[in-house]
Amino acid sequence: MSLRDEQLKHLKEMILKMASLVEVSIRDCVRALVTQDVSIAEGVITADHTINAYDVQIDEECIRLIARRQPVGRDLRFITTGMKITTDLERIADHAVNIAERARKLFETPPMKAYSDISRMREIAQRMVKDAIDSFVNEDRAMAQDVIERDEEVDDLNSSVVNDLMALMTKEPGNIIQASQLIYISRNIERIGDHATNIAEMVIYMVEGRIVRHMADLAGSQPPTQEQ
Amino acid sequence: MSLRDEQLKHLKEMILKMASLVEVSIRDCVRALVTQDVSIAEGVITADHTINAYDVQIDEECIRLIARRQPVGRDLRFITTGMKITTDLERIADHAVNIAERARKLFETPPMKAYSDISRMREIAQRMVKDAIDSFVNEDRAMAQDVIERDEEVDDLNSSVVNDLMALMTKEPGNIIQASQLIYISRNIERIGDHATNIAEMVIYMVEGRIVRHMADLAGSQPPTQEQ
Repeated sequence: MSLRDEQLKHLKEMILKMASLVEVSIRDCVRALVTQDVSIAEGVITADHTINAYDVQIDEECIRLIARRQPVGRDLRFITTGMKITTDLERIADHAVNIAERARKLFETPPMKAYSDISRMREIAQRMVKDAIDSFVNEDRAMAQDVIERDEEVDDLNSSVVNDLMALMTKEPGNIIQASQLIYISRNIERIGDHATNIAEMVIYMVEGRIVRHMADLAGSQPPTQEQ
Repeated sequence: MSLRDEQLKHLKEMILKMASLVEVSIRDCVRALVTQDVSIAEGVITADHTINAYDVQIDEECIRLIARRQPVGRDLRFITTGMKITTDLERIADHAVNIAERARKLFETPPMKAYSDISRMREIAQRMVKDAIDSFVNEDRAMAQDVIERDEEVDDLNSSVVNDLMALMTKEPGNIIQASQLIYISRNIERIGDHATNIAEMVIYMVEGRIVRHMADLAGSQPPTQEQ
């Protein structure tokens, strides 16, 4: 009992459209910081409303598909994974809004050295989101695994940015306000990478029917007892 | 076509058990900081494995219920909401682990003034998580609304903690390392409050069949066009 292709195709298209808006927001929130262009920052904040509307519509579409088509097996897992993934996409867009709002506060101050590392982090995180969504749509386990492996690079860049800025704050306390805003921005990009990783883990779980994320936990710990 | 009561009851019980473990982790990660007791910090890290195992098992239970019972309407929404909620619970536990790990790094340093605000934030955030889960299990809209309203208090406390610590860093650069760890801890508690709020929003959506979270977006913005 498999769902007709065009119905899952429609769901995939909606998720791809939502994801492409989210990618633009990731790109533009850091572009706003670097170019100090207030209209770009405002664009990110406005786009968030449309992204939220997609979140709602995709959720409704998934509920509708489950209720009317009563999918099982692979189709059912695809749909429930889709519902979870859009929640992550929506939260990624919230991080882009956080970054855009902080970027606006930094328009008065000259750019700092950290900007190039932040731009690099943004580039990797944005690509991770794109590839995580593509891995979902194409049910591509290898691509999802690749996304997970790239998260370390974002984490390392974030640690390096945070450490550099902390050292700068110690040396020049006058920079504390600006540096702490940049730490906040850097950590928001790191969290975008985390969400992409979460999506990729859910894709692998979906494709393989096993839980990469908690593999060690299931193997190593006492699992919760079956009630009743 | 409603699911038999005992089946949803079993699902509710699993989610309540997972939530109670998560509440203990929230309590203990800050207790580890305040008491400087390494065994409490390690307990939080160990408990995370069991919490992850619950996440997996609840997800499987939900898939099984949908595939075998083919619920529609209210039961279906209850189950899909349950799947999303456990994802938030699992991530809350990750924040508790983050806090426990940072707390361990602060065992060498004397407690700071911020500890009392952090303890207060923890208390509110932990209660928010408990009430959010109870609002789900009891499908209690008013309780969910109450959770959402309390998030502002956590956000305000976090802002106050961060500002105090920033001022301290400016005045006494020797405190930068310790203060920045506490900022990280404070922000992790704030995010626990955000997850509780996310859960409560999903409960309201489930109960009312409308989306509190994105109400303004749906009303005010151009919704995405219906494809096909």
